[in-house]
Formats: sequence, C-alpha cells, structure tokens
Amino acid sequence: MGRIWMSQMMGAIADLGLPFFDRPARLPPVETARKLCHDLLSDHGEASGTALAREVIALYRELQPEDRVHFIEMLAEDFAPDTTALRAAAECWLGNPDQSNYLALMRAVDSPRQELLRRMNMAPGATGVIVGMRETLLDLLPAHPELRTLDADFRHLFESWFNRGFLQFERIDWRTAAAVLEKLIAYEAVHEIRGWSDLRRRLADDRRCFAFFHPALTDEPLIFVEVALTQGIAQQIQPLLDSPPQKLDDVAPDTAVFYSISNCQAGLAGISFGNFLLKQVVDALRTELPDIKNFVTLSPMPNFCRWISGLNGMDGADAPDWLGEDDRAALTEPDWQIDEAVRAANQKVLMKLAAHYLARAGRKGRPADPVARFHLGNGASIEQINWAGDLSEKGLRQSAGLMVNYRYDSASIVANHEAFASEGEIAVSSRVRSLLNGRK
Amino acid sequence: MGRIWMSQMMGAIADLGLPFFDRPARLPPVETARKLCHDLLSDHGEASGTALAREVIALYRELQPEDRVHFIEMLAEDFAPDTTALRAAAECWLGNPDQSNYLALMRAVDSPRQELLRRMNMAPGATGVIVGMRETLLDLLPAHPELRTLDADFRHLFESWFNRGFLQFERIDWRTAAAVLEKLIAYEAVHEIRGWSDLRRRLADDRRCFAFFHPALTDEPLIFVEVALTQGIAQQIQPLLDSPPQKLDDVAPDTAVFYSISNCQAGLAGISFGNFLLKQVVDALRTELPDIKNFVTLSPMPNFCRWISGLNGMDGADAPDWLGEDDRAALTEPDWQIDEAVRAANQKVLMKLAAHYLARAGRKGRPADPVARFHLGNGASIEQINWAGDLSEKGLRQSAGLMVNYRYDSASIVANHEAFASEGEIAVSSRVRSLLNGRK
Amino acid sequence: MGRIWMSQMMGAIADLGLPFFDRPARLPPVETARKLCHDLLSDHGEASGTALAREVIALYRELQPEDRVHFIEMLAEDFAPDTTALRAAAECWLGNPDQSNYLALMRAVDSPRQELLRRMNMAPGATGVIVGMRETLLDLLPAHPELRTLDADFRHLFESWFNRGFLQFERIDWRTAAAVLEKLIAYEAVHEIRGWSDLRRRLADDRRCFAFFHPALTDEPLIFVEVALTQGIAQQIQPLLDSPPQKLDDVAPDTAVFYSISNCQAGLAGISFGNFLLKQVVDALRTELPDIKNFVTLSPMPNFCRWISGLNGMDGADAPDWLGEDDRAALTEPDWQIDEAVRAANQKVLMKLAAHYLARAGRKGRPADPVARFHLGNGASIEQINWAGDLSEKGLRQSAGLMVNYRYDSASIVANHEAFASEGEIAVSSRVRSLLNGRK
Amino acid sequence: MGRIWMSQMMGAIADLGLPFFDRPARLPPVETARKLCHDLLSDHGEASGTALAREVIALYRELQPEDRVHFIEMLAEDFAPDTTALRAAAECWLGNPDQSNYLALMRAVDSPRQELLRRMNMAPGATGVIVGMRETLLDLLPAHPELRTLDADFRHLFESWFNRGFLQFERIDWRTAAAVLEKLIAYEAVHEIRGWSDLRRRLADDRRCFAFFHPALTDEPLIFVEVALTQGIAQQIQPLLDSPPQKLDDVAPDTAVFYSISNCQAGLAGISFGNFLLKQVVDALRTELPDIKNFVTLSPMPNFCRWISGLNGMDGADAPDWLGEDDRAALTEPDWQIDEAVRAANQKVLMKLAAHYLARAGRKGRPADPVARFHLGNGASIEQINWAGDLSEKGLRQSAGLMVNYRYDSASIVANHEAFASEGEIAVSSRVRSLLNGRK
Repeated sequence: MGRIWMSQMMGAIADLGLPFFDRPARLPPVETARKLCHDLLSDHGEASGTALAREVIALYRELQPEDRVHFIEMLAEDFAPDTTALRAAAECWLGNPDQSNYLALMRAVDSPRQELLRRMNMAPGATGVIVGMRETLLDLLPAHPELRTLDADFRHLFESWFNRGFLQFERIDWRTAAAVLEKLIAYEAVHEIRGWSDLRRRLADDRRCFAFFHPALTDEPLIFVEVALTQGIAQQIQPLLDSPPQKLDDVAPDTAVFYSISNCQAGLAGISFGNFLLKQVVDALRTELPDIKNFVTLSPMPNFCRWISGLNGMDGADAPDWLGEDDRAALTEPDWQIDEAVRAANQKVLMKLAAHYLARAGRKGRPADPVARFHLGNGASIEQINWAGDLSEKGLRQSAGLMVNYRYDSASIVANHEAFASEGEIAVSSRVRSLLNGRK
Repeated sequence: MGRIWMSQMMGAIADLGLPFFDRPARLPPVETARKLCHDLLSDHGEASGTALAREVIALYRELQPEDRVHFIEMLAEDFAPDTTALRAAAECWLGNPDQSNYLALMRAVDSPRQELLRRMNMAPGATGVIVGMRETLLDLLPAHPELRTLDADFRHLFESWFNRGFLQFERIDWRTAAAVLEKLIAYEAVHEIRGWSDLRRRLADDRRCFAFFHPALTDEPLIFVEVALTQGIAQQIQPLLDSPPQKLDDVAPDTAVFYSISNCQAGLAGISFGNFLLKQVVDALRTELPDIKNFVTLSPMPNFCRWISGLNGMDGADAPDWLGEDDRAALTEPDWQIDEAVRAANQKVLMKLAAHYLARAGRKGRPADPVARFHLGNGASIEQINWAGDLSEKGLRQSAGLMVNYRYDSASIVANHEAFASEGEIAVSSRVRSLLNGRK
Repeated sequence: MGRIWMSQMMGAIADLGLPFFDRPARLPPVETARKLCHDLLSDHGEASGTALAREVIALYRELQPEDRVHFIEMLAEDFAPDTTALRAAAECWLGNPDQSNYLALMRAVDSPRQELLRRMNMAPGATGVIVGMRETLLDLLPAHPELRTLDADFRHLFESWFNRGFLQFERIDWRTAAAVLEKLIAYEAVHEIRGWSDLRRRLADDRRCFAFFHPALTDEPLIFVEVALTQGIAQQIQPLLDSPPQKLDDVAPDTAVFYSISNCQAGLAGISFGNFLLKQVVDALRTELPDIKNFVTLSPMPNFCRWISGLNGMDGADAPDWLGEDDRAALTEPDWQIDEAVRAANQKVLMKLAAHYLARAGRKGRPADPVARFHLGNGASIEQINWAGDLSEKGLRQSAGLMVNYRYDSASIVANHEAFASEGEIAVSSRVRSLLNGRK
Repeated sequence: MGRIWMSQMMGAIADLGLPFFDRPARLPPVETARKLCHDLLSDHGEASGTALAREVIALYRELQPEDRVHFIEMLAEDFAPDTTALRAAAECWLGNPDQSNYLALMRAVDSPRQELLRRMNMAPGATGVIVGMRETLLDLLPAHPELRTLDADFRHLFESWFNRGFLQFERIDWRTAAAVLEKLIAYEAVHEIRGWSDLRRRLADDRRCFAFFHPALTDEPLIFVEVALTQGIAQQIQPLLDSPPQKLDDVAPDTAVFYSISNCQAGLAGISFGNFLLKQVVDALRTELPDIKNFVTLSPMPNFCRWISGLNGMDGADAPDWLGEDDRAALTEPDWQIDEAVRAANQKVLMKLAAHYLARAGRKGRPADPVARFHLGNGASIEQINWAGDLSEKGLRQSAGLMVNYRYDSASIVANHEAFASEGEIAVSSRVRSLLNGRK
C-alpha cells in the first residue's frame, strides 16, 4: 500500500522538479544530450542524485525519431571502451596474469556505456525508455553492423535486469487495469484481438491469461499467453476464438490449450521468457485446477507453405523420399492452398508433409519451423497435426490451414529437452510417428 | 492484487515441487552443490526451468556455516574465467582490435560465475540468498585475498540488480507488516531500538521512517532512515528518543531531523543507497509538509575521542596550531570524557576541536570522521556542533557527548558536492566558521 | 492483501458448497423460495450459517423475470407484520406507555421482512441481489401501490446499509479495473460514452472521475461524477467532450467543471449520495490541485422547452410579466428549437426566460427544473447561463441548446442551502441577476 | 489501490477542515454536543455534508468519561420518540389499519436517535466512536434500566451495520500490520498473549489466526480465533502455547484445534459473529489443507468448580444421583483443586462430574457451562474431556485443570443444532457417553 502510494508520488515529484541544470538553448538536442550524458557519468552525476538522469530521460523522450538515431550513435561513439587503456590492460595481464591485472582488465573491457545506462536507469520510468533505446538500435543494426558492441552492452545489462528472478508472474483478467489490458490488444501477435469485446471474451471464466511483468515497467507486460480451458484437445482455432463464453463448471475442463503467446517488448528481443512463462502457467493451472491433465498448444506452422514451395528447387535433401512428382506439381499451382478442392485432394500428402516439416526438415536439432524450434527446445513433444485447424486467410496461406498441438508433459520435459539439445531428437506421439513412417 | 496472490502462489508451487533431480545421497553437501552448479550452467539447466536453481538455493540454505565457506571457495575455483581462452582472446584482439575480437574478449573476460549467479537467481527467494553468499564472502576476504575476483563478480551483478531505478521507496509506520518492523529492531545501528514499544514511539505521528526495498527481497529493507519532526533544530538525542509522542498538529514542525540511518544488508556493502534515500526523503517530506524548512541530521562523531587521543602522538600535522600543551594534557587523562567537570572545564576547547576534526582534519577532501565524509560527500554542510548532544555512555566515550547537525539544503547540495569532490572544500555555517577561526 | 485474498476465496468456497438443503424438485421455483425464506427466518436458518442464505440468493438469481415479480409479492404477503400482534402491542402501549410496552410495540411494528432481508444478506454477493430486488419492486410500485410498505422496509434497511460512513470514495482512471470501467459506459446517464476510446478520453490527464463504492458491491459504482479541468468556466459541452486530451501541466487549470453525474443503481433510488459526492470531490481536488478556484457544473435544463410550451396554456402565473404575445408565438412553432434562425432571433428572450425558469418558476423553494432543484438544494448558486451550450439533437430539443453553470463555493454552500431550504431563496450571480431583472 | 489512497486522503481532508461551526466557548461540552446534535438532525445538518457529523464525533472523542455519561443521557432524553405523535399514530392505525396509517405508525415508533446516529456515522471514523458510545451505555445499563430503549436503538442499527454480509474474513499472520497485531495482544481473552514474541509464536507456520473485520473499523478486529494445526487432538493447553514453532510440513497436521476465541468490541455485545467465524474457518482450512480431518476446540469450563461448590447447597436436582457424600466432602475442602493429590484421588469422579456438568446440568437446552452453550448452540458435539488439560492457576481454580474438546463436524452441525435448539439434545461422543452412563 505504502509502496504503491510512494511510487505514485515519485512520479509527482519528478514532475515537480524544475530542470536541475540549464540546458543551453542553442545546442541541438543531441548535443545537449551528449553533454548531459558526460555530466551524468562524472562526479557531477553522483552529486545530482537522480536529477541528471531525469534530465537525460526527459530529453530522450522528446527527441524526434531521427534524433533518437543520433542519440544511439552518440552512445556508440562517445562511450565506447578506451582502446588505449584496454590495450595496456590486456598486455599487462598477458605479461602477468595475476588477480590485480585480471581485475584491471575486467574494468578496461567493461564499456562506459554500461555504467552510463545504469545511471540513466535511476530516473523514474527510465527502464522502459532504455528498453525503447534498444528497440531503435535493433532497427538500425542491419544497416549499421558497427553497433553490435553497443547492442552487446544492452543485452548484458538486460540479462541482469530482466532475470527470471525479478519477473512477476500474474494472472490477467477482466479485473485487471484497463491500462494493462489495452496492451494485450496492441501486442497480441498471433490471433489479433478485435477490440474490447473480443478481449473480454478471451478473459472469460473458461479462459486464462498470464503474463510476466517487471516491477520497473509499470502496466507493461513483457510476454503473455492466452489459454483456453476445454474438454479434449482443441484442434481448430476459429471455434475457440468465436465460441461464446461458458461457466467453468459447465465446461469441466481436462485440457489447457495455449493458443497464443506474444512477446511485448521489441527492445527485449533475445532475452527469453517464453520458456519460463509456459512452465509457470502449467504449475499455476495444476494448482488451481487439479483435473486438468493435458497441457497443449494450438500452434501455427508459419512457414509450412513457403517450405513446400521450396521443395522443388531443393536438391531433395529436405524433401521426404516418398514425395512424388505429381504431389509436387499439385502443391505448386498458384494459390493452391486457397482452393478447398485441391487441399482436400491432397489431405494425406499434406498431413504427412507437415509431420516431415516439423520433425525431419532442417538441420539436425534445428527444425525448419520456428514455432517447433521454440516448443521442442522447451521440452515439448509433437502431439497432433490438425487438418483444417485455421481456415483464416492467413492460416490458409501460411500452412494450408493446418495447425499443431505441442504437448507439455511435466514428466518428460527435461528428458525431451536434453535429447533434443544433445542429439537433435524430436519427441512425437504415436499418431505423429505413423504420419512420419510408412509411405503415402 | 493479482501480483501479490501470484507471488504467494509461487512460493506454494516451489514448496510443492518434488526435488527435480535426485541428489546422490553419499556425496558431501558441497560436492552435491558443485554438481548441481555445473548442471545449472549446462543445457540441462536451461531445460529445467527454475527447478535446478531451486535445488541449488534450497541446498545452500541448509548448509552449515563451514560448508558455506566451502561453497564460496567452490564458486571461486570451479567457475573462474578460463585463462587459456582469455589469453587467446586477448592476443587475438591485440593483434586485430576489431569489433568481433572485442566482443570475443568481452565474453572471455566475463567469468562463468556471473552467469551461474544469474541462473541461481531464477529460484523464488534466491536474491536474498545470493546477497547472503556475499556476506559470507566478505567475512572471508581479509584472510583470503584471492577471493577478490569473486567479490568483483558479485559487485558487478549487484550494481545492476540494485540499481536505484529498481528500488522502492516506502514509508514505514505502525501499519507496516510486523515482519518488516522486526527488521528495524534488528538492523538499527545507531541508536538501539529497545523493543516494540520503543519502535512504536519512533513511528508515531511526529516521527517518520522511510526505507528502500527491492522487489525481490520481500519484507527486507535495504536501508532506512528515522526522522523526527520538530520545531527548531534538535541538538540533543536523548530528549528526542525519550519524549512522549505528540500529535503532528501540536508540534507544527519546521524541521526534519534525520537522527538515524542504518544499512540492513551486510552483503550489499559498497553498493550505496544512503545518498539517494536522504534526497528522496527530503522530496517526500517537502511534498507532505510544505512548512518544513530545515532538513538536518543529528549525527554522532564516532571517532572524535580516538582522534583526540592521537593528537599527542602525531607530529602535529592534524592538530590545530592553537592547541596548547595543557589542553592536550587535560584531554589525555584516562576516562576524561566521563568526568563532567573535566568536560565542562574544556567546553570551549572541545567545541573548537570538534569543528577542526570535522572540517580540517584528515587528507584534503577526506575528513577524518566517517559520518562527515558521508554527509559532506552527499552535498550537506556542517550546520552546528552541539554540546551535550549525546550523554549516553557510548556518546561520551566516542565524542565526549558532542553531536553534529549536517544540513541538507536543496539549493546548495550540488554545488557543495562539487566543491567537496573537486577541491576538497567543506561547506560550514557561519557559526561553525567562527569556531574554526580565531584563537581559543 | 489478506483481505482481498480471503474475499476471493469466499467466493470459491461458496461455489464449492454443495446445496445444503435439498430443493423439492416438483415445486415451482417461487414455492421453493417461499419455503427457503421461511426456513431462513427460523432456527434452522441460524444453524445453517450462511448456507440457507446462499440457497435463497442463488435461487433468486436464476428466477425468470415473472417469477421475480412473484417473489416480491411473496415477500410482501408472507412476511408482513403480524397485525393481531401489532394491534395488541399498540393497545397495550396506549394503555400503559412504559418502556417495556414501547419496546414491545417497536418489535411488533418491525416487519419480519427486515430480518429476512438481513439474513439473506449474509450470503456472499447478496447485497447486490437485494438491491436488484428493490429495482424490480420499484417497477411494480406504480401498478401495485399496496407494495409501498414493502418498499418502506427496503428503504429503511438501505438507509442503514448505504450510510455515507460506509461508502468508499475513489478516483477512477485508466488504471481502474475494466470490470468497473465497463459500468461507467453502461451507467452514464447524461452524455453517452461511445465506447472504450471515448471512455479513455474522459479519464485522461486533464479529466477526473470519482465515484462512491460500497464494500459489499464489488466493482459496482453507486454514483460517479465526471470532471473536466479547464482554464476558465467551460460554457459548451461538445468541445469539452470532443477535444483531444492534454497534459495537465499544459492546461494549468483554474476550474473544475462537473459535466456529468450519474446514479448507477436503480434499486437505490431515493437513497441520496450526490450531495456528498460533489462535496467530497471539491475537497479532493482542492487538496490535489490548490490552484483550482472555480468549482462549477455544466448542466442541462432538461425540461426548459417543455416548460416554454406550457407557458401559453398557463394562466400566466409561471410566466414572466415581460413576455409578449409575439415571443410566445415564436416559441410555439413546431420544432422552433431546431431552427437556428429562430433561436438566434430570440436569443435575448430565451436567455431571460432561462433565468426565469431556473430561479423564479415553480413553487417557492421548488424550482421547475429538477437539475436546478438538486444543485440549489446542495447549496450551489446559479453562476451563468450559456447560449449554444449543447447543440446536440437532445440539447436542442430539451433546452434550445442552453446550458447552465452552477457554482459550488465552499464559503457559501451552507448559507445558500439554508436560505433555500427555509426561505426558498435562490442564490444567483450578478450576471444572472441582470437577466432576471429589467425588461427585455 | 485507489480505494486505499482515497481513504487515507479522506482522513487528511477531515483534518484540514476548519471547524465549520463556531462552538460557543462558554457552554459546557455536553451542552455544545446537545446543540450540535439538534443541528445535525435539522436541515442545517443536511446542508453541511459531513461537517457537522465530524464536529459531533470530534467533540465526543474529547469528552471526559463523566461527560460521556451525560452525552448518553442527553441522547436518551432529547431524541426519544415523540410520545404524543406516537399516541396519535397508534390510535389512528387502530382506528383504520390501512397501509398509510401503518407507515405513519412505523415512522412514529422509529426514534429520532436512530436517524441521529446514522447522521453521526457519516463522519470519517465515526463507526468506531458510535460502537464506543454503546460500550459506555452498557456500563450504565445495570444502574439505569431506563436506558434500555436507547440500547434497543443501538442494537437495531448494529444488527444492520454489522450484518455478516458486510464482515470481511481475514487471515492474520506475521505480515499483518502491527496496528492490528497489537489489538490481538490487547483483546485476547482466554489465554493471555505475553508480548510480541508470544504473539509471533501464535502466528507461526503451524498456527493460524482468523478474524472478522468491518470495512468502517480500520485496524480493528471484531472477533478472532487462534488455531493450532496438530497431529491428533490436542488435550493440553500448556504444551500447545509453549512448544517451539514447527514447519507445517514437519507437522503434517490432521487436526485443527481452536484454542482461543475472543470478542474484541465490548460495544457490540449481543451482536453475534462467533458462530459464523468458526464455520468460515473450517471452510478456509479445508480449502487450504485438505488433509485436516478433525476440527475441534480446546476449551475451558469456566464455572465447573463453582458449580461443584454449589452441589451441596442444592436440593440435588442438578447433581448426578451416583454422587456420594464422601465425594462431595472431598470436593468442598478449601483449595482442593490446587492439591494435586486430592485431584488425583478424585480423577474418576471429576471426569464423570465434568461430563454431567457439560451435558446434563442446567435447564434443558441450557447447559450450565457458558462455553458449552456457545459451541453446542453452534452445532458442535462434546468430543472429549481432558484430565490435566490446563494446569495454570486459573485452569485449576476454574475447572480443577480439566478441559474439553468440542468437535465441529460439517456433516452433523445442522442436525446437532436443530436437535439442541428444539429438543435440548446434546451430541456427545461414545467416550463421553460412557462417562455419562454407568456408575462411578
């Protein structure tokens, strides 16, 4: 209680605070920011408490997009490690690798940017802004590979800051703050939430939604998963999205279907939470609803059709040996996926191809499908491939309407993961195995 | 609300969790821990979610003190940086200091311990245990200087984890949880809290108490400060501690007296919060009580008498030139501080000596008094030296009963700090200046 | 925290609870309810803890609308006071008006319904259901005047239950639970909230919304008021509803405009909160924003045009003496209010008529306008009448587009109220006075 | 969250409020109060919002004890029902018992005090003060039976205000606010809590404490129960109070022992909660700890020895027929209970007498023992009588050291209660039955 009140007040105080330091009016904003950053890293920065950090953050918030790019470049240039000092430290340690020299080398490698970012972070609300800086940086990276070291600094910090131990696991429901709920609508990446009444349905009694939050990112989920509680394993997404809500007691569910999982913060790319979130959700649901026996996903195969279209061009390495020329021909007609008759005619081939795509295609231990990589890497198994699982335009174009259930079975998660990580072995149900085996 | 419920449940889940991995029964506990730590840092660790981390933390909690020492040594030995790899990376970068080689060097310098500690931290409640590990380490350090690199790893992590931006500023009062309040009694380091009724008085209407908390350390303050709201600047500690509580309206305070500030977590030594806490408290009180004009401390001079007793032995560098032989003689009698008559006879000399001790003694910019170093380093000024400020046994022995008020004046904090940091200049009030100037 | 957790659990427990008492399957539901109600009022009811009350409430929730009517009638018939006993008690007291006989009379007058409703209320969630019962009753009342005594029992209870001392005053903003926010959309009675983005605008930084809640009615506001923070007194509603949100600092408001106040619970009709809510809001805003000097409404005059259309038919008692035949003629053309030219031509007459309508028409102390009655009864004064204040279809039809600002001035609220209550005097600003005085 | 913040602010606002109405300085305080109360009940009261109510409450808080008595008398005298009006209404209704006359009679019976108390209750914090008024009244009642009607008004209100549906059921533990915990120490009525460390033990992992709160009585429990979680049914109180805390997992409890239940608010005497609290606790524990099978009390028999000492004087009606002259003689020696040898020699007789005292003595359906009346009235059964259950001085003097376990068995609570209420039948275990039957 006190905690909450105070954090609100801190905001208020920050707002009250007159600018502690006069900004020279004529400087372009990035030059002002440069000056403030150097100040912040100096003794002056220490004296100012959080005031200088607030200045930098406030200024960054107001920057135009192009100036934000310049700001990122300024960070990369002005606060890079001191090469001369690093060279001296490296030589010194090589000459005499004792503890003191190691510590000196450790300090010399550490770039000033990390300390600068840590000091910026002292301002109220800064963490979100710093995550936003990396989002801008990631956009620049393809064209500016020289920014990779800067990105390494961000990642290094974020791995400490967003450690699983600091994340808060929360259920989201219709009693959650609207300020959080609107983020779900904005961030849902798999099956678009079409406004507040759609959202309300996804938070009804027979649904669950869970997210990770970070205490310094108020009202901002990091990642969330949507779960349907059903009897039996749901095989199709549209009925699941469109069915009217039911009382949980009337459903008497034995299955939790994870039908959507979305990362929310582009600036946290590469800092992984999904693995932890799903396992936490399994634990939470098992505690709340002991009758639930099946924990499965209902997942897309986003690149399935693209992969099929590549089969012809390949030397065949990735294609199953039973695949005939006529099969290939049928599946390379333009828009074949949209044509229900074509799909129906090729159902058996498509089902077998899907199994092959998920469990055999790609390098060993690196399935061709990114969603498969994620779930198999987490220790899930391939439970079932569903014909007509997603008949939306997007579902047809991406995967000819097929969907997959991956199963999270606590008893085998660790073994699955290890077999997958060390041997590239993929766990499949007997049903999927028979799709993989045998000829057409 | 959801947040709280979930975190309670996480505890419950952790408790439910059967040990994920069988601990070989015959191994000594540190060997089991060693094995678990290696597992945790491997692929296996990734697969296990938070289970292996929970194992390590649970095992560490049960270790006997001597085994905890072995655990620390195990961390230092088994998870040190790979010297061969580091040598190669250093040579490589020296030969060709491009970005890739820098990134490789950065990785090679980073010790595996840091990643190991980050993975341990995924377990519920781990952060507090890891802070405890460093407490053990700090105890070992004087006798084991080779552990300094390990300590550097802890510090590096803690500087990220306990960044000001992640701390929660909270008021503590009589509505606070008993589980937190009992920590105040345990951690109060300046003026002992003598049980719950003493504590209750310190949290009454005319007092304030504020603390920093970290979201991952439930019910554990990091640092707290106790404040008395008074009319005029309090000069004596005993009346302040012993007076009956008053209604704030009856006090109509114009002054906030910070009379005690205590760090709570020995494992966080060197990660500084005090500076931020005091400034935040000034802001919070100014918002709550706009009539408060003075923000001062009522502080001990812990080494004053020890310093006096050293004056004779010195070559005089640290002693004021006006100090006569008879003064010295009087102040070196055994237990002179306890003798009220002696003190009274030397009041003027002691007052002037105290001013000298605080503002002149010690290296430039490094006052002899540690409390003075802290407050002057924060940008405070020396407001006033108080005769008979602390007549407790401890107060007499340490400082002949004298106490100091340092003043935190928002308008001059930054300037004071900078003059102090760069020039070693110490800000004093005119009253203290006249003690410093002139002869006896 | 504990409190919240427990109340969630209580819900869970209630759900778990198997029906404590077998409901005879063949009885019509109202007969079952009758039996349960008699049981509940008996010893059996005491023994059952809250179980029987839960049965009654669960059954009522499931009743069809027509059965709810029968339920209400059953309450009125089965649980009316015992006339014979009351007659005896009344005679007894008249014969010997001592304390015992008074207490016996008090008990005999008290109808069994009150105790029955109190016992029903023990079930979790019952309070809302009982408020709903009165809503049904109020619908029946016009056609069933014999239910007035039952209604008196409801009122008597509600006056105790919904006493101001038990109401919780809360700010509502975008961080409020969606489950509450959707109620605002549903209950807004003055200026319709057109979906979630309209709602979001009304909760932005330059707006405020406050409500009363009752602890036993979770997520259900009783009454809420919407406030715009502006510079100067807003005279027109459309710009206020349609303008984009602004940062509060950019507005630098000196005025709080109460532009909508809505009762939410039809079943609480006649239990008044509005008076308290507005005064509480004035206090809350004065604390938060000391620069706000004006507290005014922007209010409709719902019956103005209807009153005008009645002017001709009247003997003139309610009409101002300066009103000419041609004025009357112009303002009785069909749809004259919609015709901008007609309105413009009669602006002066309409403004003066509005002043008369608000401050002179109606019986002494009972202004003709219901909104005026509410605000003047609360101690407000008529500050200003606004031409073209509401150009919506509804605004034109009801009041030819005119709106009113009532002013809540703490210094004169009590005096205004008393003059109004005892003398029927109405406080008006000098500007309104000049509209009232003088000829056209 | 908002809710909490606002209620804090309401306090602040109340404090800010200058007295709305000048109190004539010369009047004695009760005369001022009288005037304020009449004002509060007038139109003036309505206009003032909550200001006048705050005046009355603030004034009452400051009254000296003797003035509080005068205040109570003033309520009784000044705000009694109008006898003349009541006489008229009663006659009118007797003459024509229609609905209107009934409603008029209902209004005339209702004393102005009830409305006055409802209006007082609008002030923040008033509910607790009004409960305190009744506490004063109850102290006066024996000497002032004429205040019974005033008391009836208080009861009538409190039965509505403190309805079970408005009470909040909460677990109390070491994370509860100290402001609440200190109330447990103050209010514990059965086994004194000897300071904070004793309290801490009673809130440890193998104990539970639950309370009812009312939303308008902040930090004030209404009633609380202390529970020990044990293996087997605890038979002795001292080991239960003095044993060191254990981890719940190490206990693996199958039994919940309610060893202390205390009412906290003397002013709520006669408004019963205990029955509901115990049943709610059974539900809560069953949800949290499904392995708990036994829900029993460990209860004193406060009047057992007094009852024994009365056996001789009686005509024998209440004494068992098997009781011999020598038994009586042994148990009437002075301080016989304190003498361990005497007790040991009479163990069998005392055990049988205890069973008789609990289950047979007293009028039918009104056991002689008040604790037995409470638990049997709630539907519990007598499970077991324990020799040497309470060897404290108090335990020996009251009950020769014997204690009782009453069992709350959900399956038979309702049947037990009904048999007890209608037939005076008392449910006993077979073990207790054999004590009742047979000769010595």
